[in-house]
Amino acid sequence: MSGMNLPRTLAVARGDEPADLLLRNARLVNVLSGEIHRADIAIAGPVIAGIGTGYRARRTIDLEGRYVAPGLIDAHVHIESSLVPPAEFARAVVPLGVTTVVTDPHEIANVLGLDGIRFMLRDAAGSPLDVWVNAPSCVPATDLETSGARLEAADLVQLLHEPRVLGLAEVMNFPGIVDGHADVLAKLRAFHGRVIDGHCPGLTGHRLSAYAASGISSDHECVTADEAREKLRAGLTVFLREASNARNLRALLPVVTSITERRLCLCTDDRHPVDLLEEGSIDHMVRVAIAEGIDPLIAIRLGTLNPAEHYRFRDRGAVVPGRRADLVVFSDLAAFQAEQVFLCGELVARDGRMIDDRPHHESLPRTLPRTVHVDPERLDFTIRAAGAGERVRVLGAIPDQLLTESLTRKARIVDGRAVADPGRDLLKMAVVERHGRNGNIGLGFVHGIGLREGAIASTVAHDHHNLVVIGADDVSMRTAALAVVETGGGQAVAAGERVLARLPLPLAGLMSDRPVEEVCHQMHGLLDAAHALGASPRDPFMAMSFLALEVIPSLKLTDRGLVDVERFEIVPLFV
Amino acid sequence: MSGMNLPRTLAVARGDEPADLLLRNARLVNVLSGEIHRADIAIAGPVIAGIGTGYRARRTIDLEGRYVAPGLIDAHVHIESSLVPPAEFARAVVPLGVTTVVTDPHEIANVLGLDGIRFMLRDAAGSPLDVWVNAPSCVPATDLETSGARLEAADLVQLLHEPRVLGLAEVMNFPGIVDGHADVLAKLRAFHGRVIDGHCPGLTGHRLSAYAASGISSDHECVTADEAREKLRAGLTVFLREASNARNLRALLPVVTSITERRLCLCTDDRHPVDLLEEGSIDHMVRVAIAEGIDPLIAIRLGTLNPAEHYRFRDRGAVVPGRRADLVVFSDLAAFQAEQVFLCGELVARDGRMIDDRPHHESLPRTLPRTVHVDPERLDFTIRAAGAGERVRVLGAIPDQLLTESLTRKARIVDGRAVADPGRDLLKMAVVERHGRNGNIGLGFVHGIGLREGAIASTVAHDHHNLVVIGADDVSMRTAALAVVETGGGQAVAAGERVLARLPLPLAGLMSDRPVEEVCHQMHGLLDAAHALGASPRDPFMAMSFLALEVIPSLKLTDRGLVDVERFEIVPLFV
Repeated sequence: MSGMNLPRTLAVARGDEPADLLLRNARLVNVLSGEIHRADIAIAGPVIAGIGTGYRARRTIDLEGRYVAPGLIDAHVHIESSLVPPAEFARAVVPLGVTTVVTDPHEIANVLGLDGIRFMLRDAAGSPLDVWVNAPSCVPATDLETSGARLEAADLVQLLHEPRVLGLAEVMNFPGIVDGHADVLAKLRAFHGRVIDGHCPGLTGHRLSAYAASGISSDHECVTADEAREKLRAGLTVFLREASNARNLRALLPVVTSITERRLCLCTDDRHPVDLLEEGSIDHMVRVAIAEGIDPLIAIRLGTLNPAEHYRFRDRGAVVPGRRADLVVFSDLAAFQAEQVFLCGELVARDGRMIDDRPHHESLPRTLPRTVHVDPERLDFTIRAAGAGERVRVLGAIPDQLLTESLTRKARIVDGRAVADPGRDLLKMAVVERHGRNGNIGLGFVHGIGLREGAIASTVAHDHHNLVVIGADDVSMRTAALAVVETGGGQAVAAGERVLARLPLPLAGLMSDRPVEEVCHQMHGLLDAAHALGASPRDPFMAMSFLALEVIPSLKLTDRGLVDVERFEIVPLFV
Repeated sequence: MSGMNLPRTLAVARGDEPADLLLRNARLVNVLSGEIHRADIAIAGPVIAGIGTGYRARRTIDLEGRYVAPGLIDAHVHIESSLVPPAEFARAVVPLGVTTVVTDPHEIANVLGLDGIRFMLRDAAGSPLDVWVNAPSCVPATDLETSGARLEAADLVQLLHEPRVLGLAEVMNFPGIVDGHADVLAKLRAFHGRVIDGHCPGLTGHRLSAYAASGISSDHECVTADEAREKLRAGLTVFLREASNARNLRALLPVVTSITERRLCLCTDDRHPVDLLEEGSIDHMVRVAIAEGIDPLIAIRLGTLNPAEHYRFRDRGAVVPGRRADLVVFSDLAAFQAEQVFLCGELVARDGRMIDDRPHHESLPRTLPRTVHVDPERLDFTIRAAGAGERVRVLGAIPDQLLTESLTRKARIVDGRAVADPGRDLLKMAVVERHGRNGNIGLGFVHGIGLREGAIASTVAHDHHNLVVIGADDVSMRTAALAVVETGGGQAVAAGERVLARLPLPLAGLMSDRPVEEVCHQMHGLLDAAHALGASPRDPFMAMSFLALEVIPSLKLTDRGLVDVERFEIVPLFV
């Protein structure tokens, strides 16, 4: 470990030299021995040298019986979903006790390719958070969309030599794996010997066996306990997820027992800044698990030791001699609220705030190329209809899930055009290619978003991040879309020709260059405006962003049109 | 994995191609999901392709509800202690369900250095057992003995490129680690990133913290549950051991709970051929654990998943798609008696016998240089005494433990010489340097071996493997020693000038070139002869072999004299 001096660490452990820092009177949550026991913790440089009593130190903090757990590890997160870059994301999560994250930068990779990934690595390098990158395996997610970049196995191998790149991120093309497509297997081969994470919503039976047999080692898409149990049987490590738009934790907690827990980890996947700041990250998941009756030691293992073992981090995940002094100090085992956070033996956050709380954007100017290439002249959302009585396929949004239903509804036809019908919660949706490739516009209808009037637009749309718009009428849709184009990407709410709220995301159309608190404030304005227009999801922007993700069943919309995910093909709007 | 063809494995998993072998109607001991569930197991080449139902295959075996567990893994074994080389050892343990072993060839390394290790690797290569080698870290164990070879860090790194070498074996020089000796730390550095196993009997408190902080990750020397618990707290994985002469399993089982078990493994360390053939190996330990009330699933994890995880074997340790089809089939969960054993999908043993049961020595002639260099003229066991009433230090052998007590007794003096006094179970012991280096003879007394007359001799004496002799009189000692020298090493029992039994071990003075069954038969003869003379340990040869091991407390005898292990120095015989 960098900064570790073994002879000195040994001298401190023996008690022959004073420690740099001594945490006295701790209740140590020892995830290895499976106990919570009294101990003093002697730290030398970045590592724990000794646990026990009788140590001396240059600096001593009396914890007065507070608990000390290992720093939390988020097993799978797309930092871009926080709408801020890694160093600013760190300001949000480190005070919560999260000290390590494994991130899949596939949002920015879909916009800017390897340059986008390198931007994330560079930004993370200056941050008070240990950020590890899994190489995005599916850029684009499929050929049924137009993305800003394409990463083949030959591109991904360039990442293998980056010291912060761990393995291969969620292999979402599960049909490609199961059916043995050469291009997908080439990516597995390129990452042979590294951790390869999975993504296989609803996969079962023989096809699940095939997916697991490929060497992919995890899944974070389970929505039911039975699905999780079958995946555990197949040998996959199951990540329990509590994203902003996929709140699966409570449904999966029945799977957690002292016998199964070692194969389970916690991850946030996608959490927006409001949820991060107001609810939390992995710490929130640990709290929920404890509140739902999981043994606190096991709940903490899910967010520390288990992801450390999954990712083969042997230097962290437990508070024992020789490991990094990444520590969370808290007073109440059930509340699990970080009071002090140590990273490599340094106190980096206290009482929910960074010790050095300068917003990172002040010290690091961030510039990325313009990524929103939309010609206002071509923004036409017209859907021509053959006649009255026609039925259309409709995306059925499901609250707090990434899955959609595939519905059919009678279309509302006005002047030979199929239009939104807010009275039946039938809104128009458009996906506008924004990378400057082909100017495609995919059009369709969605149920479950609830707008009575107006429109919402965003350049955050998994995973291609085209410009997606949902609205009650075409004028509002156009206003919202143009508001987003103006700021070089972002999110907006409009009604008629008025822009009601906006959140600029000039960094790749995905992230803000403002402090996370300001982004959170802007987002509240945005959500309030959308809810005032009738939007029903907690976060209609997050919901919308996944309606364009054609790797999660059942029916999705991309710039190329409606995608039947089970059949994995474009299907016509009219039935 | 060699022999694995991923596209075909996927096709079998999907059910599109027939499996090579289908095990129908299994009760699958699923150590990952923590259940025992019904399943058919479809095997493609060396790996499990699918678990479930509805698979077709070229060959089907109906298991009629029998249990299928992963092949057992012995986490730490000195194969030399079986008195046969690896391929013959395989004939003993594979029918028991042991399919992988991690071996530390430090016995032969102490005799023949790297050449000895390469002999073991070569011999194992042809065997129906997956043998992995940890590089011996402590050759010689200490400088308080004379060994046949010396391996420094610079020698050990030559092993790093051997594909069958995993990591660094038990670092027995725990004082060297704790006190930060440069030569020992150099070995750790050489194996940075590999698994480094430990050995720290009785280490506690600050010094245990230091040992754990060094990056050493395991210990297999615990004798009490409290010792094991403290080592778990310090972050060490604890191997529960049931060796022929160190039966620690039952004493440690109270540590095994569903919360602690993931940090626990099973190992045999040293088991002689009689125990292997008549009692078993890891299978025996699983049986004992179950009989003592451990949940069978946990007992099986201790011998499968847990060592696989410790050694980072991601291709075995569980019966799930994508892992090696190393399987044990058995009928009774409590009895855990292997009926069929599969290695990489091939049936290799049935009903306790190898399918191909040719003793390995017939197909592989083994030749090693002569290693017993003892001049009969210099075999003098005389201990001159200053006068009557003198007290001597005495090794106190403890049944079934490697630890000894450090006793003092009044010496029996005859004609100015200190002699054995069998009436008080005070026998003479000699350690004769046999590598042709210096001809040293260390002399002392031992209590707890029980011979009323005669002597026993052996060239198996951990870890230097000098010629060790214990007897009730000097003539018997000389007869036994010469009997062993004659056969180029081995073990013998003598009374006066008569050799009563012998077991030749011409391979490095450690192993026989005969089939293991024949070695077992010879050993029975040897033990019977020793017991007839009054020897009290179950295996007086195994007991004797550890009385010369100066890394396990308290008092030991080497060719250089009596060693006080706590003080780590030579102490005089007379107090």
